[in-house]
Amino acid sequence: MNMSRTRDTRERLVVIGGDAAGMSAASQARRMRDPDELEIVAFERGHFTSYSACGIPYWVGGDVAGPDQLIARTPEEHRERGIDLRMRTEVTEIDVERQRVRARDLDSGAESWTSYDKLVIATGARPIRPDMPGADAPGVHGVQTLDDGQALIDTLAHTRGRRAVVVGAGYIGVEMAEALINRDYEVTVLNRGSEPMSTLDPDMGRLVHEAMEGLGITMVNDTEVTKVLTGDDGRVRAVATQDAEYPADVVVLGIGVRPETTLAKAAGLPLGEHGGLLTDLAMRVRGHENIWAGGDCVEVLDLVSGQERHIALGTHANKHGQVIGTGVGGGYATFPGVVGTAVSKVCDLEIARTGLREKDARRVGLQFVSVTIESTSRAGYYSGASPMTVKMLAERRTGRLLGVQIVGREGAGKRVDIAAVALTAGMTVERMTALDLGYAPPFSPVWDPVLVAARKAVAKVRGS
Amino acid sequence: MNMSRTRDTRERLVVIGGDAAGMSAASQARRMRDPDELEIVAFERGHFTSYSACGIPYWVGGDVAGPDQLIARTPEEHRERGIDLRMRTEVTEIDVERQRVRARDLDSGAESWTSYDKLVIATGARPIRPDMPGADAPGVHGVQTLDDGQALIDTLAHTRGRRAVVVGAGYIGVEMAEALINRDYEVTVLNRGSEPMSTLDPDMGRLVHEAMEGLGITMVNDTEVTKVLTGDDGRVRAVATQDAEYPADVVVLGIGVRPETTLAKAAGLPLGEHGGLLTDLAMRVRGHENIWAGGDCVEVLDLVSGQERHIALGTHANKHGQVIGTGVGGGYATFPGVVGTAVSKVCDLEIARTGLREKDARRVGLQFVSVTIESTSRAGYYSGASPMTVKMLAERRTGRLLGVQIVGREGAGKRVDIAAVALTAGMTVERMTALDLGYAPPFSPVWDPVLVAARKAVAKVRGS
Repeated sequence: MNMSRTRDTRERLVVIGGDAAGMSAASQARRMRDPDELEIVAFERGHFTSYSACGIPYWVGGDVAGPDQLIARTPEEHRERGIDLRMRTEVTEIDVERQRVRARDLDSGAESWTSYDKLVIATGARPIRPDMPGADAPGVHGVQTLDDGQALIDTLAHTRGRRAVVVGAGYIGVEMAEALINRDYEVTVLNRGSEPMSTLDPDMGRLVHEAMEGLGITMVNDTEVTKVLTGDDGRVRAVATQDAEYPADVVVLGIGVRPETTLAKAAGLPLGEHGGLLTDLAMRVRGHENIWAGGDCVEVLDLVSGQERHIALGTHANKHGQVIGTGVGGGYATFPGVVGTAVSKVCDLEIARTGLREKDARRVGLQFVSVTIESTSRAGYYSGASPMTVKMLAERRTGRLLGVQIVGREGAGKRVDIAAVALTAGMTVERMTALDLGYAPPFSPVWDPVLVAARKAVAKVRGS
Repeated sequence: MNMSRTRDTRERLVVIGGDAAGMSAASQARRMRDPDELEIVAFERGHFTSYSACGIPYWVGGDVAGPDQLIARTPEEHRERGIDLRMRTEVTEIDVERQRVRARDLDSGAESWTSYDKLVIATGARPIRPDMPGADAPGVHGVQTLDDGQALIDTLAHTRGRRAVVVGAGYIGVEMAEALINRDYEVTVLNRGSEPMSTLDPDMGRLVHEAMEGLGITMVNDTEVTKVLTGDDGRVRAVATQDAEYPADVVVLGIGVRPETTLAKAAGLPLGEHGGLLTDLAMRVRGHENIWAGGDCVEVLDLVSGQERHIALGTHANKHGQVIGTGVGGGYATFPGVVGTAVSKVCDLEIARTGLREKDARRVGLQFVSVTIESTSRAGYYSGASPMTVKMLAERRTGRLLGVQIVGREGAGKRVDIAAVALTAGMTVERMTALDLGYAPPFSPVWDPVLVAARKAVAKVRGS
């Protein structure tokens, strides 16, 4: 098969990476341009396309039946839609000058060049793996890919002991702690920070800590994992920190991810301070008219701080893909940026945040007032009303909303959307107090908890 | 006791109406001004203060333990806070010229005048009662006040038959249908309109209709109640329409409410086309520096249509009270208006709306595109994901969001808040597609249903 540039008049789009951003871009470009106008070639080094990595903890925990359900579109389905998808094929070099990529078939080892008119880089993120002895021992698992998830599930099926150690207490860490509790493991979470969920301020992270302990999860903060200890069989038997040893039949690494931009860096493409590709608002790599990038390998503009951030999240990747595909197809769309919204849960505890934490605000020179209130998810008198804590930051003097963090039970998490939209609109907390939010006793107290926080913030802004 | 104006130097605030708006205003004024600066006299003709009328259907249905739980503050608690509260005392006249009100003690019948420096009118709304034979028969109940609720509960306790007829299929009607189903009644709802929930477009009301029938509620549309038929004992035995008779052991009237502005009208205060008092943004009655009005007796500005509406809703009444009390106390606050958000449920069906329906948009001269999409409350693969229908209206050409209606199960109702904030901010549907909303598989598909609707609306606006 001739992998060099075809001589026909069609343009060729090359996509590197077959998950959310890459395949959304390919699919949207295909919707906008017929195969006789635009050829689309996509490279994916793994076994799967268009899958929800965010769903892996729930698959492990039993809330998702199987890996097939996490796959939005299989390679075959993409091919049926006119995308030339090359699975198990890793791109090893981008030649920006000559507009071509080199790719290796991982099964045969064969390498070849494919030229492009337009290129989409969607190489995703790679998990941070601690550089310590034993980190690769059998029984130690990451949960970044479907393959990782399957490997963990296989281990869980064959491991007799019920002691699990989770390293890291961010989203992946707490979600995996939940998954393992749901599978009747004794779970210990080892956390470098002072409280779990460092995407929250520590006072809010403390609430998560207490709730996790209430669920029977052992939470160890301020600790550094130094070594994975193995038994005579070579399998993991414990995790060591500077202070102690934690026996473990299985270890899950949930320390976070970094943008996978090895190729981009080698090609001389612009990277930001977090290691992600830098793009313009149309998701084009800065300075490159015919190269787009999106998903977990790029940095995004934080609309509240005005600075770039790296956020690995499927919802952004899908939006990026949509914008990129529209641009590739000759249309117009932009991704204006994020406000930093995230929501998660540990069993029935819902955890949400948007905008800036206290330390984020300080770092970018914003002065602020901060308030924390307690309210309930429903009218206090309505059955099932559950407590909810809302923390709100507003800019000093102007009263502009800067951030919201919510910890509570049913109905708490998605309330963060109110603040996400208000942040996007640049609202002041004073304007927020008059927001016309949905009210009925089964859904909210007469003052929604977010508005209770806004009222308290208004009072505090006045004295600022 | 001398009810005429006191000779001391204190100002006197008189409040007419002891529920949400009136007592919120009184309480906020009290927080801002000590009793030696401001005397506060409040008149309430009923037995209760500061209660949640919205909670009555849930009390009847068993989700709220008792009427005490619906009372946020008792008369005694208000008095302890320095408010001179006169219960069972009905104001019968406002003398704007001489700045005084005449009130009658409903138990003794004694009348007297009380002068005021500042006046707050919070007379609420009165239920629409059909003008037909038998409407006052024993067994026919409104559900506007706590007294109404108690009377209905007493009737249900003593009635052997299990057939209930609900007249009206708006919020109160569907909530009462749920309450009666929860109490094992056979429920028939008689509705004048073509579908229940006329606050939705009929195509969305149709979904409510189907769900109600799925719950075993008999829904009769396009029908006019003509008569309540009574038995030999004088009690209700059936409800007659132009076409049929519906046997009934109990009848609940849920036809809606009108502003209670009899006093205000007699005093020559300005009323709008819906019969409610007209105020400025600080909730002062137009043209009257020292008279405020709020809650169910006023009209409010609809920020989307630019016209006044009448909306009886506790959440607005509380906000009005807060703004009024701040103004009375010498501070500054405004109520900018509403976008028309409402949420309700029938058993596990959640129903929400904000902004304009199709007919509202037409009435005010707005041209629009309309889209309807189906999605799920959680990621489709996550256990408990339930279907959700979202309808979205956007202005032709500009793409400005005009309204959203949502019908679904768990997690559907409060999603309307996303649209409520976006409407308040005047966002376009194009801007909405990039909103950074909370995403995780237990909370949302990767594209939130509201964003799926926004994407479809964008495509349709393009061709408009």
